[in-house]
Amino acid sequence: MTTESGFIGLMRAIASDPAARDLSDDCAVLNIGGESLILTHDMMAEGVHWLSNADPADVAWKLVASNLSDLAAKGARPLGVLLGFMLGEDTWDRKFAEGLNEVLGRFDVPLLGGDTVANRGDKRSLGLTAIGLATFAPVPARTGAHIGDLVYVTGTLGDALAGFELIEAGFDEVRILADAYNRPEPRLHEGQLLAPLVHAMMDVSDGLLLDSERLARASKVGIAIDVSQIPLSDAYISYRGDALESRMQAASWGDDYQLLFAAAPEIQLPVTSTLIGQVIQGSGLLLYDGDRQLPLPATLGYQHQ
Amino acid sequence: MTTESGFIGLMRAIASDPAARDLSDDCAVLNIGGESLILTHDMMAEGVHWLSNADPADVAWKLVASNLSDLAAKGARPLGVLLGFMLGEDTWDRKFAEGLNEVLGRFDVPLLGGDTVANRGDKRSLGLTAIGLATFAPVPARTGAHIGDLVYVTGTLGDALAGFELIEAGFDEVRILADAYNRPEPRLHEGQLLAPLVHAMMDVSDGLLLDSERLARASKVGIAIDVSQIPLSDAYISYRGDALESRMQAASWGDDYQLLFAAAPEIQLPVTSTLIGQVIQGSGLLLYDGDRQLPLPATLGYQHQ
Repeated sequence: MTTESGFIGLMRAIASDPAARDLSDDCAVLNIGGESLILTHDMMAEGVHWLSNADPADVAWKLVASNLSDLAAKGARPLGVLLGFMLGEDTWDRKFAEGLNEVLGRFDVPLLGGDTVANRGDKRSLGLTAIGLATFAPVPARTGAHIGDLVYVTGTLGDALAGFELIEAGFDEVRILADAYNRPEPRLHEGQLLAPLVHAMMDVSDGLLLDSERLARASKVGIAIDVSQIPLSDAYISYRGDALESRMQAASWGDDYQLLFAAAPEIQLPVTSTLIGQVIQGSGLLLYDGDRQLPLPATLGYQHQ
Repeated sequence: MTTESGFIGLMRAIASDPAARDLSDDCAVLNIGGESLILTHDMMAEGVHWLSNADPADVAWKLVASNLSDLAAKGARPLGVLLGFMLGEDTWDRKFAEGLNEVLGRFDVPLLGGDTVANRGDKRSLGLTAIGLATFAPVPARTGAHIGDLVYVTGTLGDALAGFELIEAGFDEVRILADAYNRPEPRLHEGQLLAPLVHAMMDVSDGLLLDSERLARASKVGIAIDVSQIPLSDAYISYRGDALESRMQAASWGDDYQLLFAAAPEIQLPVTSTLIGQVIQGSGLLLYDGDRQLPLPATLGYQHQ
């Protein structure tokens, strides 16, 4: 079986156009008619990205929200989506359509087109392409973090992890946590406000630590994260506490869909966010608990197969 | 199981933005920065769109070519594609990547991005989004055919059908026919030359008769097709002859990826094409063999499940 990184390596050899950003960013950025068009395509598969008993409306929500989160990281305003849908059982498909209508309405994004394919009894896979328009140029990238920048994250981390665990255990009544997993809120508004102010930005979809390391690598700098500063919600703390281990887990799990960004220390931020680290000389990720340096865990986040 | 038409009905209720063209056209048309952006997304699935023993390079070719054919029908110049890829067996994936590189190079289209998803032993499904830029406004649509227009088609029809049958029977040495099925050539150049001249245009992907009926319905006119004028290649005639039945089959099978268009009688056409009918008062499709009217066959073309 091909690994994701192996296949992306093959694709990177093909994707020489600068708009592809070496397949190392959240989106492609295509300059056209004086505007910057932002393009992203994400897939989701049954049994990989959602449980077979998941609410189809939640699947639709997450498919759209995860793509919009990529647009948010570019400070883009969504223009529309195209859906690739594998047909299946009638009730499931109808509920998916209702959820799709709901999430598109929530974020005011038009459905522009797509395609359907018959299902021969396989697990489903779905695809969504989101198209956005940059609201500020240059469009933020993972590259560009400066030594001396401060590193911030929006919102709280780990809520989706807690939500997933609770849902798996059959306790989904803690809505704020279940919703964090099932119905993430892409930070579109925050991304647009931040785009003119940041040196580098990305969304946290595979875990804060892993994504921070990616930001560091792309920017050819080091990033020091202070785990004691990782923002946790009251609901998360009630569930798992706020000890170091709990904070490390919150920082190592995916599906947060917050924005991670680096900005100069003098920048006044227009959005609520938490200072969690700084950009330093060197390369890759360094972890601290206050003043004490920590070894890197074996797994930084959600590594795709 | 939901039918494709049933699901598209659900989507049509959501897709109220004019750019979606009521999901009744080959592409979405998004006006932005004084330009018209053309967007299309097609899926292909193993066992539905390709045989399990197909050459992966051919699968890549057809996935790209079928999407570019939609852009051709809008007279668009391709700007790039995004790939949704289900990972699988290493050799297959490597050959797919080679084929992708080949087809993108052939039509000078950049790979801009995409996503991969793990495969849990299911049949594969793949998705491709193609983005193009209109070269002429107004962008051709299925609507717009005028009563009195003449109806034309580029190239020849039925070659992909013959190629498919020969491949299934183990005889793929008639390269011109096998290639028509495996490696269709989207009519990008022809589409750009025709866009300023036509009243309506679409690509023939599900069979000439079915697609002609769709053009007639979208334009709220009748279309009379003279089956005796349907263009056949020498290779097709060698294989199946050119009797009425053979012509009807050539006109009822998908995968041709030619352009079907309606233009005023006085228009001088800048591309090689064949006059096959005319736009008349009424509604839907009428079939003729010369002067003799024919009953419509039970199935006009490739109807998606």
